Amino acid sequence: MTFDKGGWRQGAACVAALTFDVDAESPILAAGRRYADNAMAMTHQAFGPKVGVPRILQMLDDLQQPATFFIPGVTAERYPHMVEQVLESGHEIAHHSHTHRTAVNMTFDDERADFDRALSALGRFGISPRGHRAALWQPSWRTPLLVAEYGLKYDSSLMDADVPYLIETPAGTVAELPPHWSLDDWEQYAFLPEPRIGEIIQSPLVVADMWIHEIDAMRRHGALFMLTCHPFLTGRAGRLEALRTVIEAALERGDVRFSTCAALAEAALGDPGLVAGPLNPVTASEELYPDY
Amino acid sequence: MTFDKGGWRQGAACVAALTFDVDAESPILAAGRRYADNAMAMTHQAFGPKVGVPRILQMLDDLQQPATFFIPGVTAERYPHMVEQVLESGHEIAHHSHTHRTAVNMTFDDERADFDRALSALGRFGISPRGHRAALWQPSWRTPLLVAEYGLKYDSSLMDADVPYLIETPAGTVAELPPHWSLDDWEQYAFLPEPRIGEIIQSPLVVADMWIHEIDAMRRHGALFMLTCHPFLTGRAGRLEALRTVIEAALERGDVRFSTCAALAEAALGDPGLVAGPLNPVTASEELYPDY
Amino acid sequence: MTFDKGGWRQGAACVAALTFDVDAESPILAAGRRYADNAMAMTHQAFGPKVGVPRILQMLDDLQQPATFFIPGVTAERYPHMVEQVLESGHEIAHHSHTHRTAVNMTFDDERADFDRALSALGRFGISPRGHRAALWQPSWRTPLLVAEYGLKYDSSLMDADVPYLIETPAGTVAELPPHWSLDDWEQYAFLPEPRIGEIIQSPLVVADMWIHEIDAMRRHGALFMLTCHPFLTGRAGRLEALRTVIEAALERGDVRFSTCAALAEAALGDPGLVAGPLNPVTASEELYPDY
Amino acid sequence: MTFDKGGWRQGAACVAALTFDVDAESPILAAGRRYADNAMAMTHQAFGPKVGVPRILQMLDDLQQPATFFIPGVTAERYPHMVEQVLESGHEIAHHSHTHRTAVNMTFDDERADFDRALSALGRFGISPRGHRAALWQPSWRTPLLVAEYGLKYDSSLMDADVPYLIETPAGTVAELPPHWSLDDWEQYAFLPEPRIGEIIQSPLVVADMWIHEIDAMRRHGALFMLTCHPFLTGRAGRLEALRTVIEAALERGDVRFSTCAALAEAALGDPGLVAGPLNPVTASEELYPDY
Repeated sequence: MTFDKGGWRQGAACVAALTFDVDAESPILAAGRRYADNAMAMTHQAFGPKVGVPRILQMLDDLQQPATFFIPGVTAERYPHMVEQVLESGHEIAHHSHTHRTAVNMTFDDERADFDRALSALGRFGISPRGHRAALWQPSWRTPLLVAEYGLKYDSSLMDADVPYLIETPAGTVAELPPHWSLDDWEQYAFLPEPRIGEIIQSPLVVADMWIHEIDAMRRHGALFMLTCHPFLTGRAGRLEALRTVIEAALERGDVRFSTCAALAEAALGDPGLVAGPLNPVTASEELYPDY
Repeated sequence: MTFDKGGWRQGAACVAALTFDVDAESPILAAGRRYADNAMAMTHQAFGPKVGVPRILQMLDDLQQPATFFIPGVTAERYPHMVEQVLESGHEIAHHSHTHRTAVNMTFDDERADFDRALSALGRFGISPRGHRAALWQPSWRTPLLVAEYGLKYDSSLMDADVPYLIETPAGTVAELPPHWSLDDWEQYAFLPEPRIGEIIQSPLVVADMWIHEIDAMRRHGALFMLTCHPFLTGRAGRLEALRTVIEAALERGDVRFSTCAALAEAALGDPGLVAGPLNPVTASEELYPDY
Repeated sequence: MTFDKGGWRQGAACVAALTFDVDAESPILAAGRRYADNAMAMTHQAFGPKVGVPRILQMLDDLQQPATFFIPGVTAERYPHMVEQVLESGHEIAHHSHTHRTAVNMTFDDERADFDRALSALGRFGISPRGHRAALWQPSWRTPLLVAEYGLKYDSSLMDADVPYLIETPAGTVAELPPHWSLDDWEQYAFLPEPRIGEIIQSPLVVADMWIHEIDAMRRHGALFMLTCHPFLTGRAGRLEALRTVIEAALERGDVRFSTCAALAEAALGDPGLVAGPLNPVTASEELYPDY
Repeated sequence: MTFDKGGWRQGAACVAALTFDVDAESPILAAGRRYADNAMAMTHQAFGPKVGVPRILQMLDDLQQPATFFIPGVTAERYPHMVEQVLESGHEIAHHSHTHRTAVNMTFDDERADFDRALSALGRFGISPRGHRAALWQPSWRTPLLVAEYGLKYDSSLMDADVPYLIETPAGTVAELPPHWSLDDWEQYAFLPEPRIGEIIQSPLVVADMWIHEIDAMRRHGALFMLTCHPFLTGRAGRLEALRTVIEAALERGDVRFSTCAALAEAALGDPGLVAGPLNPVTASEELYPDY
């Protein structure tokens, strides 16, 4: 199979986007404000911005590959030095909500307020993000509208494809760059008993083999390898070196192109083969599904 | 060991049935109608009919092997184009309830109504299914009666054998084609935090090795390799390629025969070595088991 | 290291006891009488006595090694033909409670009644068991007393050793043959969503490697490889063949001796190196541990 | 990369600290006093001091490497012979709370009382511990103050680094020697259904490979391999031999130095490259995080 050089893949068999969600304390506080009293849980999360991000930046510099950092507003405010480090490295910084609370249970006004606060927090660093990823990958059905209204070009939260697609909203067209649970370090590595954020600690050797297998399979299907890692997890030495192995294996293939999400969104928006359509909410019949 | 050519195995050491349950949104809505508000969860499920099914059909065409697609009525109604694709491919389409709600907690009238609705939904495509699989593999004790009453030839939900057997009901004899949790991609791959449908994401490399080992063991025991995959899971590139590896390994053995469930049921119903008996409900003594 | 021929090991580096708990429906009904309505869960359990036990007997016959079958009273009553098969094979049958309900929450009278009922159920087959294993490995602190009172020679439920030891009770001395979670197929293979009996389905290839590693480590430490398998789990083809691999690997070592629990208990009771002591209940201070 | 001989690493590429938390019954009783009635759960825990510790001491002696044993006060009181064995072996014994109850939900007075009781319990053996590890790795934000007030030199509970760092408190400076969930045998091996302390039993072969991989990665990053094992888990034969493999692999590298925590803390406190700073509690805004 060969791939169109004019399309979003630009001739590559598989496009890889390395994304790092620098959540730090935010998902734990979203699970309950009381967890601020748990010093271990808080420092467990602080490892990400303090140790994980500098290590990841060094590795990306070693390999000379671009990446995208999704940083919640509260994390940017708590760790300005980390934000400056990422900025200086030249990688992309993108919108990842302000508080890392799910939009599913918010009113649209509350979602907008959180969205707006995150923009302000990033704005104080001179950052004007090109894209957005919902906290917990849980946008509302109207999130793409919000993304478009604020002039961002892409979202990265929905899962009905493994290639980019275009969402038409009343405020303009947005590229969707789909992530997936199987390409997320959280399910492989996250462990905390309280709040319970995960229960399994997989060997990085198994994870590296799995992701390299996925890249090879995606090269056959012309897919987007959208990898999501968290510095509080993948910043640990053994996991970082496993990720290095994955990237090196992909580079050895010769037909995998690494891209920031912003560049990928631009390529998708300019791809004449992609046709925009609306995102249609699902409605469920109360008769068929009586349990709310 | 050699196997009788006149029996259900038709001389093969192991018969393999590839089945795909195209659940899409239905099991998530069955867990709670409110999940329709979760755009990520809904698109996560939509991946199955949108991307997974066409890829699976292509792979089956590459390998020239038959398969059975169990499609809930609501999925057929939401994705008519997907149903047409499966129909055109020549594979079997079978009954998988209308709503994917468990029959265990339904009255028999409600179970019948759901069963009937599913037949209507498939009937609008001209499909007259030969067999049935209960949602969640949770039939009631009277489900085989329903299957027979409506003229279907087989059920695939019970687990007290790993070869076909025959159930006698007042409305006729039904072949049971037993599935099992260990031959299901759900336990290996499904992950969603809300509703919680699974917590583990296994490497497809480990899964492929496990299933090939199972096929080899089943060849020794003359068993039925009844594999259940879900397009929203196995439609992902790395998992699809792992499944391709499993099928190719089975074909290389030379003594594994792939069959649709309909053909397998027919062979079982015509096998003089299989004797039909009733399905006897279990009753539990309140004295011995006081906790309801 | 060499081992005393007069001791319980009789010169072997490691003694292996193959035990099969033929639970069938009993643990599911113990979790709730209502699960009798779940035809899949019930047939899932019935696989053990119907298919698993005959296969296991055949494998033991192939390898010419002895084993112990722990059979709850209700299972013996439901599956008399299975009990006869085990009896004819010459393997040991032992006491595994009547209902498979935990003794921890029972009064001592209720525990005794259940214990007694199990003896009657086995007695109707002419079986006079030499030993006992508590349901869920959850005896009360007085269970060894009950075991001794009824004239049984061993219990197999406690975990503070990986060699046999002797418990002194007012009614006589009992050998304890300790099992452990890591040598149990349940944690590796059991999966049912409702009642939730497990969530992980491990590859039999990984399990076989783990158990062979354990045998080799135990040979170094002179330990008891007390393996607990369940026919509803290990009776599945791939798992049975993995177990065969484990046994064959142990036999190849040349210094592993397979024994029934009854013979092992007899050796332990006759070992002058083992000194009996009482089983001392733990008491917890309400001041130190205020939460009940 | 080369490492400063004057720093805490003393020229090694990676420093390894072998720590054994001899919890025994304490975490189970902390989960509920009623579990004292569960003879299996209690004996499951007793395996640690009875069998696990002597085996671990023998292995450390075989390999001639130092280790640190964190022993809760109640465990020291229940198992004085075990404490004497560790003392005689020359390894370090350190503070691990009295009751193994989490400090997060205690008042500071209660935390102090528990801390003090543990010191008394160890003091009766003539032990004056140099360091502390919080039960469940859950200190309060004021725990380091307590550690300093009582004249101890280090804590080992926080996770925002994988190298030692210095915490300034009003009562003096304390070295923090960070552990992590990924270097803990509990997540890999612990299983008990009630109280539920874990659900996964990983193969020791997989764990050994993972930890050796971590050591190699940490050699690249100059990190602290702070391994936490529990004698009730790692005292089992297969796991002990897996740990031996890990230590042997580290020794073969030639640039990994094993150290007690006390010696490591001393090196850290004397390292001119480490600057002490306060431990700053996290505060969470009620406006941003309304859910308590």
